[in-house]
Amino acid sequence: MTLDLTAILDEIGAEMAAATDRGKVASYIPELACIDPARFGMAVCLPDGQVFTTGDAQEPFSIQSISKVFTLAMALGRMGDQFWDRVSREPSGQAFNSILQLEHHKGIPRNPFVNAGAIATTDAALAGHAPSEFLGELLQFIRTAAGDDSIFINEKVAKSEEATGDLNRALAYFMAAHGNMANPVPLALGAYFHQCAVEMSCAQLARAALFLTELPDGPRLVSAARRRRINAMMMLCGHYDASGDFAYRVGLPGKSGVGGGIMVVAPQHAGIAVWSPGLNGQGNSKLGTAAVEMLVRATGWSVFD
Amino acid sequence: MTLDLTAILDEIGAEMAAATDRGKVASYIPELACIDPARFGMAVCLPDGQVFTTGDAQEPFSIQSISKVFTLAMALGRMGDQFWDRVSREPSGQAFNSILQLEHHKGIPRNPFVNAGAIATTDAALAGHAPSEFLGELLQFIRTAAGDDSIFINEKVAKSEEATGDLNRALAYFMAAHGNMANPVPLALGAYFHQCAVEMSCAQLARAALFLTELPDGPRLVSAARRRRINAMMMLCGHYDASGDFAYRVGLPGKSGVGGGIMVVAPQHAGIAVWSPGLNGQGNSKLGTAAVEMLVRATGWSVFD
Amino acid sequence: MTLDLTAILDEIGAEMAAATDRGKVASYIPELACIDPARFGMAVCLPDGQVFTTGDAQEPFSIQSISKVFTLAMALGRMGDQFWDRVSREPSGQAFNSILQLEHHKGIPRNPFVNAGAIATTDAALAGHAPSEFLGELLQFIRTAAGDDSIFINEKVAKSEEATGDLNRALAYFMAAHGNMANPVPLALGAYFHQCAVEMSCAQLARAALFLTELPDGPRLVSAARRRRINAMMMLCGHYDASGDFAYRVGLPGKSGVGGGIMVVAPQHAGIAVWSPGLNGQGNSKLGTAAVEMLVRATGWSVFD
Amino acid sequence: MTLDLTAILDEIGAEMAAATDRGKVASYIPELACIDPARFGMAVCLPDGQVFTTGDAQEPFSIQSISKVFTLAMALGRMGDQFWDRVSREPSGQAFNSILQLEHHKGIPRNPFVNAGAIATTDAALAGHAPSEFLGELLQFIRTAAGDDSIFINEKVAKSEEATGDLNRALAYFMAAHGNMANPVPLALGAYFHQCAVEMSCAQLARAALFLTELPDGPRLVSAARRRRINAMMMLCGHYDASGDFAYRVGLPGKSGVGGGIMVVAPQHAGIAVWSPGLNGQGNSKLGTAAVEMLVRATGWSVFD
Repeated sequence: MTLDLTAILDEIGAEMAAATDRGKVASYIPELACIDPARFGMAVCLPDGQVFTTGDAQEPFSIQSISKVFTLAMALGRMGDQFWDRVSREPSGQAFNSILQLEHHKGIPRNPFVNAGAIATTDAALAGHAPSEFLGELLQFIRTAAGDDSIFINEKVAKSEEATGDLNRALAYFMAAHGNMANPVPLALGAYFHQCAVEMSCAQLARAALFLTELPDGPRLVSAARRRRINAMMMLCGHYDASGDFAYRVGLPGKSGVGGGIMVVAPQHAGIAVWSPGLNGQGNSKLGTAAVEMLVRATGWSVFD
Repeated sequence: MTLDLTAILDEIGAEMAAATDRGKVASYIPELACIDPARFGMAVCLPDGQVFTTGDAQEPFSIQSISKVFTLAMALGRMGDQFWDRVSREPSGQAFNSILQLEHHKGIPRNPFVNAGAIATTDAALAGHAPSEFLGELLQFIRTAAGDDSIFINEKVAKSEEATGDLNRALAYFMAAHGNMANPVPLALGAYFHQCAVEMSCAQLARAALFLTELPDGPRLVSAARRRRINAMMMLCGHYDASGDFAYRVGLPGKSGVGGGIMVVAPQHAGIAVWSPGLNGQGNSKLGTAAVEMLVRATGWSVFD
Repeated sequence: MTLDLTAILDEIGAEMAAATDRGKVASYIPELACIDPARFGMAVCLPDGQVFTTGDAQEPFSIQSISKVFTLAMALGRMGDQFWDRVSREPSGQAFNSILQLEHHKGIPRNPFVNAGAIATTDAALAGHAPSEFLGELLQFIRTAAGDDSIFINEKVAKSEEATGDLNRALAYFMAAHGNMANPVPLALGAYFHQCAVEMSCAQLARAALFLTELPDGPRLVSAARRRRINAMMMLCGHYDASGDFAYRVGLPGKSGVGGGIMVVAPQHAGIAVWSPGLNGQGNSKLGTAAVEMLVRATGWSVFD
Repeated sequence: MTLDLTAILDEIGAEMAAATDRGKVASYIPELACIDPARFGMAVCLPDGQVFTTGDAQEPFSIQSISKVFTLAMALGRMGDQFWDRVSREPSGQAFNSILQLEHHKGIPRNPFVNAGAIATTDAALAGHAPSEFLGELLQFIRTAAGDDSIFINEKVAKSEEATGDLNRALAYFMAAHGNMANPVPLALGAYFHQCAVEMSCAQLARAALFLTELPDGPRLVSAARRRRINAMMMLCGHYDASGDFAYRVGLPGKSGVGGGIMVVAPQHAGIAVWSPGLNGQGNSKLGTAAVEMLVRATGWSVFD
């Protein structure tokens, strides 16, 4: 069966444009709060490089926690499996910014995608380098994956993250108190706040997602074993305390960000990205989730079938 | 590439026979405590019905929590999506028998595979029927899936479960106190204790697992949408607080039981069952997990690639 | 300074009669739900036996958790300090019926006054006797303390407690699962539900409270060391998760019940009882607490001064 | 009955000198780790100013968390009862440095004596003043209470606290994230770390404790109502998660510090201080607790009798 992705995306775009209950835009920093909830974009990139889009798919947005996937790849590249001594790989059963589980497990975060785990991952990826150096490499990694050099960090967003980052400071100092920070907390957090401020469009993100599936050729950024494992982490923990719901409805590994983006991998089939700024109660893009659910229903790309 | 499953299973069987650190056999009831930790069996059943085995693959063992997958299918058949009002579908981030999360969520268990959730699932599947009637239907479901009428409940095991069931009683009464039990607690627990005492061999279980993937023909016990969702639940929550680890190492939906069995689904490819009575620290079969990991490495059946 | 207790109680009675915000009467069983929230009684009994009262001080009400003080005295009498191997003596920091802390401490309740601890205390006081025998002795203990043989158990209340007791069943089976129940759960709970259904008037309860202070003569039911310790437990844990607030406002050891009663000990000075059926958010009598606060302000009986 | 306090203290001193199991000296900073566990001192100061001592009662030690009592008095002086909007007054049921309860209660610490609560209390006492100004006033308060101008802060201890203060940083930033810090975190923590480094002898501390009971004359630092309430807080929460045990064994309001000191108030009777550097499992002075227990048994000063 040949898929008519143009038609499928058109239909999704039309349905999402008509949606009235669009969730709530994140409001903790002005740069996110001011985004128009009517925005919607989606892109699908096939392994051969073809890209299909709908809506605002070329509009850069703040990828926020989606960046954690790239940093995880970098940290695993630096530390190998020793990385897992510092961060567990289990769903947390708690909100993304909970400190409770961190206390229960003596400073070891549950997975690389809850906030504490992501901070520890950035700390591991720093590996003694200066934050600016790390951020340079991270951008290089993302640009290579996306095949596009015009990807940058929004300094204003990074500054705002820094200004509202007390909960992340609490998490980081808690881990430091348990000996689970290799760099000084302000330095690691500086890198973390900047990493969250990377801006990408759906088109760039969909192509970048392909580093997590087998490609006939093109850049190979991580080994097959590693990409399987990163996909597993995204499937189990990629949507905070709604990861089970995403797996149930979509059935693909994905990672959401509070900016309203979701990056999804359909192994063997495609890289997918969607953006709709309104969030559901668990902090994931409301229409974005619905859009990927529609896409999978139309394409049969669920890994569970 | 044609897979030589005979050779692959032979190699796995040989490696597992040689393993010295075999985990700890469950000891809370005598019927499990007396099982020889040296036992090991594995079976792979292809969609066309071909079965490949190694070791004690024809030996019946207590499937225990693996039964929760069949009961979930029955409960969803009875209640449809309303079932999810009674049971969430998120990983718990806690031990399988924790009551903590149940308190936090006011009597709603986190997923159908933690003990509380499984009791609620059995309670839902009872749906006003007598326990004996429910158990008859459950056996019929399993026998149809396995294509084998010689599958029974071990009454002695059921009795022992009942005798050591105080924690499950606590969970059930806690849910009852929050209005989340439809049947009297002793009745629902009676059904639950018996369901855990079903005995099957790896060969039977591997074939039964095929009800969770697409089959060219043969019995179709659940719809495509439903089997995707059951698979999602197994991937996210099938191994208690080591579900992330199983996804990371194996990358397939599976459900373990304290009897040392694991039932695994390789969508499009196979039903898989393994049995080794020794458990790891999280209550999952130690060698069983390792064996499935080997199988997936050899076959490339991970859904994440 | 001679205290004019008649005048003090008159003033308290008048102020409480005029109060409009009287809290919420417990509604989980019909026998409590139907009590008129306008009822209010208070009694103060001096060590020499003089009793001062105001309002409905002769009206029997359901003492509910106040009974836990008498059972604790009995359990300590039977087991001595070994009792504290089964029950801790720390505030719980949780709601009175929380199961969370029970899980954290592997079936050891935090203190004898949270529900789990009170069930364990009754279980200890049973000490192999039949529930009816235990209840006979408990009534005898209370009657001796109160100097009044007309104190009984309300069977209808006991039946209603039983009918709504699933949460207590959960707590009891949870302790049983951890080996912390000496009697079969239904038997211990039967005794517990009946003990909560004892009915007393403020006058009876105020006199009974004197067993917890030094008396010139009269019945001596517990040793000086033991009564100090029971008083300490009441001070630290007698008002569930509002014990700190009671200590802060009143400064005397006391124990509340969901029927709206509070028994208070003013060491060297008096036994005190108050009854007002409306409860505050923490399950303690709203006006009852306010009344004791007024009494202490007028008498200077706080132990903290 | 006239008490022979000289004889009583001699006996206590002799028994404590002979004790072999002396607990474990705190080791998280070198200044505490190096203290000789054989040290022991005790002082009792009567309302008329008479002081009785035994052992190293004139030796200054690090009062650590005992300082929280003085800061609480100052914060209440500045804010009045509004203070209790920022800090609850219930026992925590958790370790002194737990962050769990802080999450559950959205940044409101359980009481002024757990670490988070003490940091919030210092933050409240700062009230916009510079830390040095606050510390000057705090020292003045303590010196006035102790009637002794030779009480100082040990700068080396303050520096060490600062160097090992990551857990306190986590607590403070967590409260800041919930809007419960009035001053910048580093500033409030600077004041907090210095306050913990005040050094006093048992003799000084026993006299200072008298500000919490009625005095015939002499300085009156807090009102009667306030000292009752501070005493109540010490009784309920003064010994972390062993407050119930201290109430049970001693029956007096007291506050312990990790330096091995305990300050105790016997209302109407005496101010008491004890110092023995070895701690029990809950972080309170092991022999110190035993010594106060002996003293109360000999004097009958328990408030519960």
